[in-house]
Amino acid sequence: MHISEFQAMMRNLYFKRDLDRGAEGTFNWLVDEVKELGEELKKSPIDREATEKEFADVIAWLASLANIFGIDLENASLNKYNFKCPKCEHSPCKCTF
Amino acid sequence: MHISEFQAMMRNLYFKRDLDRGAEGTFNWLVDEVKELGEELKKSPIDREATEKEFADVIAWLASLANIFGIDLENASLNKYNFKCPKCEHSPCKCTF
Repeated sequence: MHISEFQAMMRNLYFKRDLDRGAEGTFNWLVDEVKELGEELKKSPIDREATEKEFADVIAWLASLANIFGIDLENASLNKYNFKCPKCEHSPCKCTF
Repeated sequence: MHISEFQAMMRNLYFKRDLDRGAEGTFNWLVDEVKELGEELKKSPIDREATEKEFADVIAWLASLANIFGIDLENASLNKYNFKCPKCEHSPCKCTF
């Protein structure tokens, strides 16, 4: 599925709720989801199914946040990362820092 | 571009660096990118170009983190969010909380 299609699906599912919650509330929820992902990743061994759900939640809330601001996540991503490192312009990246 | 193609592009660009940095360092970088996104979103009016780059960075680092753990971000996302809310199973979501 295209990034833009995933974002559109999230819009269909949640846009009204996202708007009602607002930008700050949705950003805070994204932060919480990132924290939950971090907690899963600390486990040894990781719970693969639970970890996949946390990755899904992070990209889902990122898409919801982008929807609130009317930002096309796919365009934004490909404008910056277009098959080369945006800093050194090589693929693979050859940055020395 | 498919989510999986974006993830593969990030793998081609950064996988060696991501492995060298490791899971904890990559997760911490993701957290920093989310914070930077939050700072951009606080601006009024927002700087659209800068905000798009911060959204791109968050999905890019999320893909890098998924690459370290060998998790397919597209499969994970669609397993949880498959055209219906995973909680109420409606589209659009009808959750009452």
